[in-house]
Amino acid sequence: MNKGLLIVLSGPSGVGKGTVCSVLRHKMPELVYSVSATTRSPRLGETDGINYFFKTREQFQELISRGAMLEYAEYVNNYYGTPRDFVEHTINSGKDIILEIEVQGALKVKETFPQGVFIFLMPPSLEVLKQRITGRGTESQEIIDSRMSIAAEEINLIRYYDYAVVNDEIEAACHRIQSIVTAEHCRKERYLASLAESMQAASEKA
Amino acid sequence: MNKGLLIVLSGPSGVGKGTVCSVLRHKMPELVYSVSATTRSPRLGETDGINYFFKTREQFQELISRGAMLEYAEYVNNYYGTPRDFVEHTINSGKDIILEIEVQGALKVKETFPQGVFIFLMPPSLEVLKQRITGRGTESQEIIDSRMSIAAEEINLIRYYDYAVVNDEIEAACHRIQSIVTAEHCRKERYLASLAESMQAASEKA
Repeated sequence: MNKGLLIVLSGPSGVGKGTVCSVLRHKMPELVYSVSATTRSPRLGETDGINYFFKTREQFQELISRGAMLEYAEYVNNYYGTPRDFVEHTINSGKDIILEIEVQGALKVKETFPQGVFIFLMPPSLEVLKQRITGRGTESQEIIDSRMSIAAEEINLIRYYDYAVVNDEIEAACHRIQSIVTAEHCRKERYLASLAESMQAASEKA
Repeated sequence: MNKGLLIVLSGPSGVGKGTVCSVLRHKMPELVYSVSATTRSPRLGETDGINYFFKTREQFQELISRGAMLEYAEYVNNYYGTPRDFVEHTINSGKDIILEIEVQGALKVKETFPQGVFIFLMPPSLEVLKQRITGRGTESQEIIDSRMSIAAEEINLIRYYDYAVVNDEIEAACHRIQSIVTAEHCRKERYLASLAESMQAASEKA
């Protein structure tokens, strides 16, 4: 069986990764959505085990030390990370999985899974990004400034990604991501792998 | 302005390239459709300048000799080829163009345009391909046998392509091709090129 695709959706903080991902859940129910672990506090409406696995710093560090995190990064004084087992099990079962993670974490995943599909969600402009970060209204000015400076650095990392999807309009951004997943399934390398597999199955049957 | 994409749709004779392309015309009216030149006789319902530019062998050889063909190949005793000017002009004007051409011609195009998007249309199986070639009902057994043997050789050339699209169902195949075009527009290389361009435009304005 062909392995599933590992799709990594990343981009600067405040670009709208979470919103895009929640719309994608409705449009692409066939995708498995990886749940990240984090040490940051739950925001209003977030549920443990659905939006994130919320952990204490001690719990998180214990997971790191026994190699149970595919990637992790510290970002604005909080850990974010991806439990490894779930990702590997999903791909090996032939299903596609999507990871919505921070930029630094995505580059760590790339070290382990260079064959992954790396999508960078872009704001229409830096000005729009600032409005989005400010508009959330739940953070101090210091945190906003720090996030803007980190965001500018993160955009520089787009060169390590495969695709840039501009989040000008959520429906349009989701349509682009759906198209990327469909196109990646059509890559000739995947086709040749499945052809070789079906020929082997036929010869074993004969 | 970003250049348009050069999309090459190819695959073995009888796989249904023409049918897929005619459905794509309705679904993707924004694509420019390259018209090939050929020395083969028009089939029922084909119009000169729309389906092909129908040429005599003498006319076609004259076009080759003055370098006016982007690619050409002889296939079952007929020339097929792509007028070069139209393709280059379309791409440079920022529009996408799709070429529906034979497998040998596609590889020639790749020598000139390695950055093109090369899509190989596959039959669901060789058996289905044979039915399609036979079912056309307009060719002798000798020509059918020759086409089947050429088709098998052509499928080996899939390794030079970027994508394999299985033509199991025309609507599904067209949807995959649409997705590939959308995804290729999201490649980070294109995004970075347009970003650099808009920054240059801004600095020239300043």
